[in-house]
Amino acid sequence: MERLPGFRDFYPEPLPHPDVWSADARQYIFDKWRMVARRYGFREYDGPPLEPLELYTLKSGAEIVGQLYNFVDKGERSISLRPEMTPTLARMVAAHERNYKKPIKWFALPQLFRYERQQKGRLREHFQLNADVIGETDTAADSELLGLLIDTLRAFGLTAEDFVIRLSSRNAWQEFFQQRGGKPEDAYNFYQAVDKLERETPEESRKKFSAVGISFDEVNDFIKGGKPTAELQAVVDNLTARGLAAFVKIDYQVIRGLAYYTGVVFEAFDKKGEFRAIAGGGRYDNLIKLISGGKVNLPALGFGMGDVVLLELLKQRGLLPKFDSQIQTFCLIEDETLRPASLAFIQQLRDAGQAVEYALTPAKSDKQFKRAMELKAQWTVKLEKTPEGALSAKWKNLATREEKTISPPGLP
Amino acid sequence: MERLPGFRDFYPEPLPHPDVWSADARQYIFDKWRMVARRYGFREYDGPPLEPLELYTLKSGAEIVGQLYNFVDKGERSISLRPEMTPTLARMVAAHERNYKKPIKWFALPQLFRYERQQKGRLREHFQLNADVIGETDTAADSELLGLLIDTLRAFGLTAEDFVIRLSSRNAWQEFFQQRGGKPEDAYNFYQAVDKLERETPEESRKKFSAVGISFDEVNDFIKGGKPTAELQAVVDNLTARGLAAFVKIDYQVIRGLAYYTGVVFEAFDKKGEFRAIAGGGRYDNLIKLISGGKVNLPALGFGMGDVVLLELLKQRGLLPKFDSQIQTFCLIEDETLRPASLAFIQQLRDAGQAVEYALTPAKSDKQFKRAMELKAQWTVKLEKTPEGALSAKWKNLATREEKTISPPGLP
Repeated sequence: MERLPGFRDFYPEPLPHPDVWSADARQYIFDKWRMVARRYGFREYDGPPLEPLELYTLKSGAEIVGQLYNFVDKGERSISLRPEMTPTLARMVAAHERNYKKPIKWFALPQLFRYERQQKGRLREHFQLNADVIGETDTAADSELLGLLIDTLRAFGLTAEDFVIRLSSRNAWQEFFQQRGGKPEDAYNFYQAVDKLERETPEESRKKFSAVGISFDEVNDFIKGGKPTAELQAVVDNLTARGLAAFVKIDYQVIRGLAYYTGVVFEAFDKKGEFRAIAGGGRYDNLIKLISGGKVNLPALGFGMGDVVLLELLKQRGLLPKFDSQIQTFCLIEDETLRPASLAFIQQLRDAGQAVEYALTPAKSDKQFKRAMELKAQWTVKLEKTPEGALSAKWKNLATREEKTISPPGLP
Repeated sequence: MERLPGFRDFYPEPLPHPDVWSADARQYIFDKWRMVARRYGFREYDGPPLEPLELYTLKSGAEIVGQLYNFVDKGERSISLRPEMTPTLARMVAAHERNYKKPIKWFALPQLFRYERQQKGRLREHFQLNADVIGETDTAADSELLGLLIDTLRAFGLTAEDFVIRLSSRNAWQEFFQQRGGKPEDAYNFYQAVDKLERETPEESRKKFSAVGISFDEVNDFIKGGKPTAELQAVVDNLTARGLAAFVKIDYQVIRGLAYYTGVVFEAFDKKGEFRAIAGGGRYDNLIKLISGGKVNLPALGFGMGDVVLLELLKQRGLLPKFDSQIQTFCLIEDETLRPASLAFIQQLRDAGQAVEYALTPAKSDKQFKRAMELKAQWTVKLEKTPEGALSAKWKNLATREEKTISPPGLP
């Protein structure tokens, strides 16, 4: 029996096979994501992994359905596994925003799903850190969100040598497009053409821009000019005050493919350009209004950072720690008459918060010790009985080989 | 736009509406589950939330399909959202067990899905702690697993006054059934009838037992007799050594409905009997062989503990903490010329691991202070400038009202 194509099994390390993923590395990434989000005052939320299909078609049009993991359920509902978190967030915020002070700063760690039929071997799910700020139009919110993005990557040991955040502005591009007579109905195709500039040949790009009546050369000049808009300058100034300016640069080549962005947009890349984007996001000031059917109108912005590219990058830079059992104490039971007392002692150690392992059944002394070493336990402990019948605990630090005996048995 | 029926939205506390769930309480439960599992040396794993439908029908027969959230995907595969974790675990273990020392002690925190068409208002998903021990036939493994179950519930503040684990034996029931001439093809219906004893009238039960040729009175006598088998006695002795005997009792009324249990089985209940089972599990020594098509034959046992009943119980006993923003420091910015310096200071505090909040845009001094109080921040801090232009940080502890000024700005 095999797992479904495009899905991952997560095993404890050391990994048994190159084809499986590390549950420890996943948890390491989740812990850092949560830790930094909390430092920034972001609160965790979550929604269902399944949503009505309409939640996605409303925002992105029917063309999105080809990429969705969607189906009809037993109640004849058209539903989809979530391909992204923002529509769920917009739905949840629209339902209860009155109960929360603005700006709302929330994060989530959803598993997201896409079903692209043609691509063999490609993952159909990944996890994402999603962080959003809702209810603040000022670019101070954009800066705060970018600070979180930068500090999240820094928390993994990545530096300004490793990654850069390319800042751009959907507003600037919109103005560019309008000033050159672009038609509103062509705007989405225009943004898509800019988004794909780096991945397509100049001929392909030239054709696409000409189809929407825009000069390819002017597009290139605009990107090369790269003059920051007032909003982008404000963001850079704010990040400069934080000491984070080295992590960003203005780069109009970034525009974000999705239709709903409205202001500052950005993507984080490794500096060597070896990987796909590490994270991406921006402002989507109209989306909550759209999702709520006009009931709630709140400005918003956010980013998503996936676990797959991040993990590849951390591996390649040697920034993933070695994961082991995290066992602190291995209790050796060499005298089976002391097993009940050893179980009581193990209970005492675990009650005190220690991670403790031991041989469930009688085993040779050297085999037990070998197991303690394999598990990278910090200590072994063994109960011993004095001739008078009193118990003591003989501790051994496996790193320093230091030994100490404690009577009655207790922590070393 | 509404979420799908039977699914939950998880919001940060304080909750905006009785109809939504607490993301904070969920994380509190997950953290405790992980903490205690690690103390016991269990390692985390996870599999896909979607599996081939066959993985479940293989184990439970086609009748299970009525309860599954199953569908046909775009690649014409019959698949299902996972209704339980054990088949995934068996699949994963069968694939790579050679790389892991036995016994394998693993846990997972999966979200599980059921689609029962008829039940309105009932949840279609929940989260579960799943803990399993694989590769050990000795009842020492059953005891270790029960120890984990007990200590997990204790970690939430629940005591022997609050819950009890009812221990039973599928072996004992199998022997009972065989000795009275029960036919193998009736065994499943017999187990089901025992499982439902507490929820059905004596008349219904009597009918069911007579249909499989077993006397209802003998069943009742067997339950009342309640003599522990040798394996159950060994488990009780082991737990007694750990000081955990008060948390268990022999109770043959428990049998577990699922077909695949083979040895010791158990269920945890609140002592007042107000809730459904808090957790349940047992041995399933034949399942890995079945799932692996005979390739791998390993004894195994495990339990599942859902988040919904546990949460209800903790709420009712007043054992859930108050959750808040966990903000440590609120930085007051009263002089806008000090905003850049304040941003630099906030960055410094966050780099040091503090959770820090502040007003993104200029706000009145009393409004900022009120927000700090609402967030239950431990401290406020405000940068000030001496006439000579040097900066200092004025800290105020919001609980003790203690104030201190530190120059140059640093931690209090």
